[in-house]
Amino acid sequence: MEKTLQGACIIGQSGGPTSVINASAYGVIRTALDNGSITKVYGAAHGIKGVLDDKLYDMGEEDAYELSLLMNTPSSELGSCRYKMADPDKDDTDYRRILEIFKKYDVRYFFYNGGNDSMDTCDKVSRFMEKSGYECRVIGVPKTIDNDLYNTDHCPGFGSAAKYIATACAEVYKDAHVYDTGMIVIIEIMGRHAGWLAASSALASLVGCGPDLIYLPERDFDMDDFIARASAIYREKGNCIVAVSEGIHYADGSFVSEAKTSATDGFGHAQLGGLASLLSAVIKERTGAKVRGIELSLLQRCAAHIASKADVEEAFLAGKVAVESAVAGESGKMVAFKRECADGKYVCVPTLVPLTSVANFEKKVPLEWITEDGAGVKGEFIDYALPLIQGEPERPTENSLPRYARLKKVLAK
Amino acid sequence: MEKTLQGACIIGQSGGPTSVINASAYGVIRTALDNGSITKVYGAAHGIKGVLDDKLYDMGEEDAYELSLLMNTPSSELGSCRYKMADPDKDDTDYRRILEIFKKYDVRYFFYNGGNDSMDTCDKVSRFMEKSGYECRVIGVPKTIDNDLYNTDHCPGFGSAAKYIATACAEVYKDAHVYDTGMIVIIEIMGRHAGWLAASSALASLVGCGPDLIYLPERDFDMDDFIARASAIYREKGNCIVAVSEGIHYADGSFVSEAKTSATDGFGHAQLGGLASLLSAVIKERTGAKVRGIELSLLQRCAAHIASKADVEEAFLAGKVAVESAVAGESGKMVAFKRECADGKYVCVPTLVPLTSVANFEKKVPLEWITEDGAGVKGEFIDYALPLIQGEPERPTENSLPRYARLKKVLAK
Repeated sequence: MEKTLQGACIIGQSGGPTSVINASAYGVIRTALDNGSITKVYGAAHGIKGVLDDKLYDMGEEDAYELSLLMNTPSSELGSCRYKMADPDKDDTDYRRILEIFKKYDVRYFFYNGGNDSMDTCDKVSRFMEKSGYECRVIGVPKTIDNDLYNTDHCPGFGSAAKYIATACAEVYKDAHVYDTGMIVIIEIMGRHAGWLAASSALASLVGCGPDLIYLPERDFDMDDFIARASAIYREKGNCIVAVSEGIHYADGSFVSEAKTSATDGFGHAQLGGLASLLSAVIKERTGAKVRGIELSLLQRCAAHIASKADVEEAFLAGKVAVESAVAGESGKMVAFKRECADGKYVCVPTLVPLTSVANFEKKVPLEWITEDGAGVKGEFIDYALPLIQGEPERPTENSLPRYARLKKVLAK
Repeated sequence: MEKTLQGACIIGQSGGPTSVINASAYGVIRTALDNGSITKVYGAAHGIKGVLDDKLYDMGEEDAYELSLLMNTPSSELGSCRYKMADPDKDDTDYRRILEIFKKYDVRYFFYNGGNDSMDTCDKVSRFMEKSGYECRVIGVPKTIDNDLYNTDHCPGFGSAAKYIATACAEVYKDAHVYDTGMIVIIEIMGRHAGWLAASSALASLVGCGPDLIYLPERDFDMDDFIARASAIYREKGNCIVAVSEGIHYADGSFVSEAKTSATDGFGHAQLGGLASLLSAVIKERTGAKVRGIELSLLQRCAAHIASKADVEEAFLAGKVAVESAVAGESGKMVAFKRECADGKYVCVPTLVPLTSVANFEKKVPLEWITEDGAGVKGEFIDYALPLIQGEPERPTENSLPRYARLKKVLAK
């Protein structure tokens, strides 16, 4: 393809938001606005739905400073969606509509920023355009706090979430150790199938405030074993801090958060609270200890105020490389990261991988990084995650509160 | 008293921890170590219990740099307690023990850092020493995230908690507005009797991300009115963000978090989750909307990583002024803050108020600062709270995680 291709581009954001997904969008938008081959830069409102609905923002109408504030604005500023595209071989209605819109705006570049499902969307769009003979270069830009994308060392969004989780766990540790009468604290962390986020709580051990027990969905959960361990630690130290992935499950595959336990049986019904509430209730019933359940909830994926500089910069880089690669002729690929080491220091090297090698796979924490007892992570995980949480980015403020981008969002004509 | 008094001092921390209570302890410790009248500086392990148990740390044994890190170490580093002292007229056992310890270590200065109950303890100790004819100067150092201490413009600890709450609410707002399918979010904030913390969520409106509804315990809560308002906002805007004090109550005084509602009746039992879970369940049942409950939990009182510089500095100042005042002859007082204005700018002026004027009172949000509909706060609150969240203190880090003080805690001989 390597010939010059003139035309407009679309950037869309999809899936759950992160602290740095807008930094990737800015990487795409800034690089595209500055690139001679790209005639117009459109932002799709709510991802692929904005394309289907012909709702595109003209990013060239935005103020340059406001755009730059996307570097520190959490969540998906263009709007996101969880729209699952049909298999084009079965129903190509949406794809024909997308082609119609691409032709209407002379879109020759499509950048889609998201996780597994979004890379699947990206891949389907890419293949349909190719099949249709409409030249459009499609590049995926990775993001997910879950860090479960295949074929990349890590994902933009993970480092900042990991930094938030480690810091919050350290602070909770400090808080929970203040009284001479102890407490068991259960901290519930996101991650339905992969335990990267819960494992990040172990980073707090570097400042002497790590959890005593960490449970990931990569290993089956055993309630009795958990209670025995937590009770023993509580009896010995007077306190016990537990970090759990929301996705922990029993050996039969059923989620602990949804399963009936003796505690819920006691009440005879499903819980209103989440996993942290459930485990707190069980452990309180079985040990009589003072217990507190804390769910980090949405805060772990939108806490831009404690984003990692490495993560923000890599997120921007992913967007920038997507545009540069597309202009250079690439398509049907996702920007991925390789980890290299130079002078003993971590270096993140962007690369391209086929979308088909990413879509619909899930990368989990290697079992050999989990301690034999299944209740902690080893040094290999710390070595892996530590470079990703480094540094404090510039954070413009207003009244000492975060100054987010204020976009005009002018609809394209 | 104004004569010179030579002797040792004790600093104790009490009640729930905050992000800056250690900055106050450092204000006391540093100033006392540097003061010629004070011969020894002891830290009481777990507040007054450390005195009763003869468990005192010799702060002179600590490394100066480690001590300085108390400025950014959350929670009560010396340990806290919730020990309620008896009325000395009915049972003076504890007081006689305290006197014994004071004599043993030649303690002539006692500084106690805490909230309402701690000022009560402080007052009782002060009066007992006076009655006993043992010269010991007693000064209270205020702290509480709840900001409910009487006779002071505000309390150290509140500003940092308010800053965390405003920032977290802004980030959740961003997150909750990302999909074209909306959501109602209920954010549960601390404050059993006073709504200062929940009101602080309104600061997020300064960056365009404030809650739609804010409920404080200063006004009676009406569930039907709440549901009607939340539903209307959700229908109109597609989203609704609600901030609630944990202490909201019905007109009969019963806490909403403990009361049976139609939703809990539906399940026929008490909740395991807290207020946010309960309100989420009720609103989901009544409106069918997608709802998420978020409890800020311990994070709001220990998030030193986002402490306000103004708060950290004022916390230190409170400790410093306590020592200077005591050495100058004051006793039976608490350090309080007056708000002044110089060149149109906020200035915090330390002052002294009698302990008896503080102990066992609660300062609430003025009713005239709450909107007529009872579902928000007015500009007066913003004007009051905004100066308290200003600035970013120096925050030493290690591996990009907070570097907390590591004290040796050498027991006094």
